[in-house]
Amino acid sequence: MKWRTAISEVEHGKESIRGYELTSLMAKKSFSDVVFLVLRGTLPSAAEARMMDALLVACIDHGIGVASAVVSRLTASTGNSLHTALASGILAFGKLHGGAAQDAAEFFSSQKDTADIDVLIGSLKEKKIRVPGYGHKVLLEDSRVTALCAKARELGFFGTYCEFALMVEKSLNAVSSKKLPLNIDGALAAVLLDMGFDPIQARGVFLIGRVPGLIAHIHEEMTQGPGLRRLREDEYEYTGGKNKKI
Amino acid sequence: MKWRTAISEVEHGKESIRGYELTSLMAKKSFSDVVFLVLRGTLPSAAEARMMDALLVACIDHGIGVASAVVSRLTASTGNSLHTALASGILAFGKLHGGAAQDAAEFFSSQKDTADIDVLIGSLKEKKIRVPGYGHKVLLEDSRVTALCAKARELGFFGTYCEFALMVEKSLNAVSSKKLPLNIDGALAAVLLDMGFDPIQARGVFLIGRVPGLIAHIHEEMTQGPGLRRLREDEYEYTGGKNKKI
Amino acid sequence: MKWRTAISEVEHGKESIRGYELTSLMAKKSFSDVVFLVLRGTLPSAAEARMMDALLVACIDHGIGVASAVVSRLTASTGNSLHTALASGILAFGKLHGGAAQDAAEFFSSQKDTADIDVLIGSLKEKKIRVPGYGHKVLLEDSRVTALCAKARELGFFGTYCEFALMVEKSLNAVSSKKLPLNIDGALAAVLLDMGFDPIQARGVFLIGRVPGLIAHIHEEMTQGPGLRRLREDEYEYTGGKNKKI
Amino acid sequence: MKWRTAISEVEHGKESIRGYELTSLMAKKSFSDVVFLVLRGTLPSAAEARMMDALLVACIDHGIGVASAVVSRLTASTGNSLHTALASGILAFGKLHGGAAQDAAEFFSSQKDTADIDVLIGSLKEKKIRVPGYGHKVLLEDSRVTALCAKARELGFFGTYCEFALMVEKSLNAVSSKKLPLNIDGALAAVLLDMGFDPIQARGVFLIGRVPGLIAHIHEEMTQGPGLRRLREDEYEYTGGKNKKI
Repeated sequence: MKWRTAISEVEHGKESIRGYELTSLMAKKSFSDVVFLVLRGTLPSAAEARMMDALLVACIDHGIGVASAVVSRLTASTGNSLHTALASGILAFGKLHGGAAQDAAEFFSSQKDTADIDVLIGSLKEKKIRVPGYGHKVLLEDSRVTALCAKARELGFFGTYCEFALMVEKSLNAVSSKKLPLNIDGALAAVLLDMGFDPIQARGVFLIGRVPGLIAHIHEEMTQGPGLRRLREDEYEYTGGKNKKI
Repeated sequence: MKWRTAISEVEHGKESIRGYELTSLMAKKSFSDVVFLVLRGTLPSAAEARMMDALLVACIDHGIGVASAVVSRLTASTGNSLHTALASGILAFGKLHGGAAQDAAEFFSSQKDTADIDVLIGSLKEKKIRVPGYGHKVLLEDSRVTALCAKARELGFFGTYCEFALMVEKSLNAVSSKKLPLNIDGALAAVLLDMGFDPIQARGVFLIGRVPGLIAHIHEEMTQGPGLRRLREDEYEYTGGKNKKI
Repeated sequence: MKWRTAISEVEHGKESIRGYELTSLMAKKSFSDVVFLVLRGTLPSAAEARMMDALLVACIDHGIGVASAVVSRLTASTGNSLHTALASGILAFGKLHGGAAQDAAEFFSSQKDTADIDVLIGSLKEKKIRVPGYGHKVLLEDSRVTALCAKARELGFFGTYCEFALMVEKSLNAVSSKKLPLNIDGALAAVLLDMGFDPIQARGVFLIGRVPGLIAHIHEEMTQGPGLRRLREDEYEYTGGKNKKI
Repeated sequence: MKWRTAISEVEHGKESIRGYELTSLMAKKSFSDVVFLVLRGTLPSAAEARMMDALLVACIDHGIGVASAVVSRLTASTGNSLHTALASGILAFGKLHGGAAQDAAEFFSSQKDTADIDVLIGSLKEKKIRVPGYGHKVLLEDSRVTALCAKARELGFFGTYCEFALMVEKSLNAVSSKKLPLNIDGALAAVLLDMGFDPIQARGVFLIGRVPGLIAHIHEEMTQGPGLRRLREDEYEYTGGKNKKI
């Protein structure tokens, strides 16, 4: 069975991306334009292009403390090359860190037409199912979310998914004891759905946006880091037994 | 020992990237502007911004046949999530595929001030050391290279590294029996060095540029692929023994 | 918050594994004994030790055609080091390849006490939920399964989980149009549950068993492979458009 | 071009490993016997089998503080599956952590027949080239090394490579201001070369030995960990600027 793709081809040394000559894209289009093209198959409108820029910039980095940054830098510290350290950092984007954009998009997609949001949220709370895209381990309010929603309104992408996301936020906070604001994963998901992306692509946009930040961290570690890292003795505790006989 | 970074911070829910407010970058800057910022620490000039776009677009995808695309898609076909498939594809960017941008940049950096290029190339040929950044497994001429060099000239980034890269090309082809044109890795390396990036960052720019292409391949595999892939029986041969007794 | 572990420690240059002196384990115990120890916290009985050997050996390799072997070798072919190629191959063990051992173990764990297996299987068939641990893309009968079940009976580990797995097989094949034999993932899961392992550990045992096979493939590729691999032109097809104007 | 392998095949549901029936290996051989077989192509002698067990057990784990364990656990803490966390941990085995077994073996292989070791070591010291396989970030004496050397002598594998490794140790410590004992990577390398393994396989044996330890750490993190991990605010410092204007 042949492999099939509609993404790109190379013929006699001439590359096409989604049917467009690569050299012509290089001459006339921005990177985020071509990111949109390669994911969606069409070039973005001016509004789509500006929204993509805001979405990708929103994801670019979020401090050295997050698992993906720490993992990338630890892997770099053991003497690995850039692509190896980058891959390890990307692996740290599990369901609880980065991955929630896809989960939130899947939740919004499947539930948007629900008749009564309060009943839905109540039933999820009862089953102790966490709604993805709300709450943050550290942040109580996320300025990125406010900025994304403002930009989406300005550019005409604050549609039914964004509306739904805010209604869920309201309903959630009516029944939750702790504050559960729409977080960056949820906002990203809602805006991207309103732009016509699907949930897997929502996760993809997050990853495209964050890769430059991880690369900056790895570069900093490689050029200014202290060499091989490991936990200090006072950072861990051994709770197993001792001196067992065989 | 504390971890230290100058890349980004989050304070009271307000993110800074290299000292700039993230929300202000979201409002006013393009993605490639902020890619430049996060890697270099300063915002790009207009010329730097346009050069970055051309460089990143040049890398975005190169057909389904390359190892990174095949690896990503195989990993996706076994039922993995997007970030896992992406990381596996990134791991396929070894020295012979993608990694050469860094090697070429290191070669250009360390040899640029050599007095006699022909002597240098002759001596490498004698020691059978391959010069990174020249030649391609499939392409004899790469339109991306022509386009990048043209853009670099137009924007004022065709400097001493680019000149050196072309002199090496001339010298190489004078002694090589097969054609060894400057390839995309070499062109990327030369232009990025002339812009002030270092060799590790050159590899980083390639990876940032290619990640969207890989994500498009994984998305296509997940949504339109045939399910679990494996080699057909006629695609491999077993050359080991049979029926050995224990 | 401190990291905590009961697995191992190093104190004044003396290592303990689950409380046992490492050097004493090196002197007296086999590798699979210590694999059991590090996973379970106790040394195996003679029967457990022999069962572990059979389980790990069963997983060691399964031809060059599977996704994990192909991915490892592709990554090695681009000029990567062994650990990078190994990690990429491990990433290919998704839900449809290797990962099913954990899914099967979770299914057996959660359903073992079901009152009527035929009702359960009928209801899953109706909802089009695939039962993990049954069927194989290529094999109609798997000699590894027969051998594992025989060994488990001989050593006293053919318990209630194994019985349940066979009852499910019978029930499945009564309603399925294609043959769905208990496969290696299912057999591994059932025997390991009967030995007292949990579902995550079942997947772990598969991975421990298969890593040597992947390393043999990577070594073969590095020492005897053809260099950089890519798809031939007749192995793929481009289905996208051409010559679109910007 | 066909893929070719001498490692394993599956024919009509019957697996062969290096020509031996897999089910027969499952019935009669230990895991480390078959690890030896899959790497080397022949079954081990009794002495080789016992040496393999000691080598693999020596590598099985080395505390929670090393980069590979921390990386694996961080990746698990973000909600990933076992194989993803395992791959990330394996990526942390760079040149300075785990990878040195291969470097040491390459050094021993290429230098063993050197006429004057003191001259060699003096010249490397002058060029500030670190000799791989000596010294340890934490340990001054490594009981695993003593135990491996003792086992190798007992079983007849303390050959010319082991002798060479000890002569290098003597020579190194005559000129070094800090103690540089033969470390586990160096001891592993020397014994494996004396058994007939090559440098890539030496790294492979280390990885095979350590994978069960990593899996135990990931399992512990998944079942007893605190959930999503990140650095505390007092564990890092932001050294970049603030409030820059665009």
